[in-house]
Amino acid sequence: MEDMHCGTSPIVGFRFTLSPMTNDFVEVIKGALEEVDTSAVRMHTDDVSTVIRGKQGHVFNVAKALALHTAKTGVHVALNGTFSAGCPGDSAGDAYLDKPDEQLNHDRTKQYVSSQFALYPMNHPDYMSVIYREIERAKERGVFNESMHDASGIHGDIHDVFDFYEEAFTHARSEDHRHLVMTVSMSINSPSHGGN
Amino acid sequence: MEDMHCGTSPIVGFRFTLSPMTNDFVEVIKGALEEVDTSAVRMHTDDVSTVIRGKQGHVFNVAKALALHTAKTGVHVALNGTFSAGCPGDSAGDAYLDKPDEQLNHDRTKQYVSSQFALYPMNHPDYMSVIYREIERAKERGVFNESMHDASGIHGDIHDVFDFYEEAFTHARSEDHRHLVMTVSMSINSPSHGGN
Repeated sequence: MEDMHCGTSPIVGFRFTLSPMTNDFVEVIKGALEEVDTSAVRMHTDDVSTVIRGKQGHVFNVAKALALHTAKTGVHVALNGTFSAGCPGDSAGDAYLDKPDEQLNHDRTKQYVSSQFALYPMNHPDYMSVIYREIERAKERGVFNESMHDASGIHGDIHDVFDFYEEAFTHARSEDHRHLVMTVSMSINSPSHGGN
Repeated sequence: MEDMHCGTSPIVGFRFTLSPMTNDFVEVIKGALEEVDTSAVRMHTDDVSTVIRGKQGHVFNVAKALALHTAKTGVHVALNGTFSAGCPGDSAGDAYLDKPDEQLNHDRTKQYVSSQFALYPMNHPDYMSVIYREIERAKERGVFNESMHDASGIHGDIHDVFDFYEEAFTHARSEDHRHLVMTVSMSINSPSHGGN
């Protein structure tokens, strides 16, 4: 109960499940974790999800690299996760804020992904304006797909999509409203994607 | 941009992805959708997720039935989704609020599940108190597993777990704070679950 006030730590977290829809799901997940350089983030896996925490740039870099590496196996993969910053209990793991900013995963292979996201700026009376502003940004960046209940569709090349997500996550929080949550569901190599 | 104010509709939505980790994922998903009675909710599937919307009791009943039916195939399944109520644009689909309250799926087969959830009461200055109150409720109900960054672990028999989730979702919103979001990640038949 001691962590009921929001912190000021710059730590970003991403708690996710990576679900390769294949009988070999264990090998696919292990392969991604072995091939991706995760040394710049704190990573912990339990029986439901994996969490990575550290500087924002590293968290997004590792998340994208895991998705991309898994995608290259060709199997249908779902990535579902929640990015968060600002609250609560964000004092743990601060060691990883000492890491150099230089990103460690550089694979630029093109890969179509279709995804949906939702922003939850906490304790913010005008949070809908924040959300609509970031949807406008998606349209400007050329990655907006469609509107829907409770989410917005974002698609395109994985690098453009993750660039947008990091930009939106940066701009949707502020000094006055530090606690931000962003959910992302991503579908890769789906049989529904057709010619994309 | 016309939907920037929160609604007063009692509609509950659940947007989710169901990911059977098997080469036969299409058959497993289709089988669940055929076997479960979804006639009391509006359902729409796109290339990333499925959304069900309607009266709260039906939405939770259908969500559990889909998870349980998929579980009975024995394959490892991940269910990731977001329950929401209260905002925005909740006027569409009101027809389903005419449905009788009687639930349509009654399978009581026991099934261990491990899951994690997070509550996001929107525009609520004291949202952390709401969250901690529902974590206390999980402990009282005997389904609390562990605390972690950005989520809380909930596990046990699927019926107890879903009963808790519906109860928490009910109590975490109020007349003054209608817009509530609850994310749930559930792991079923995981090789990590061991003797459970």
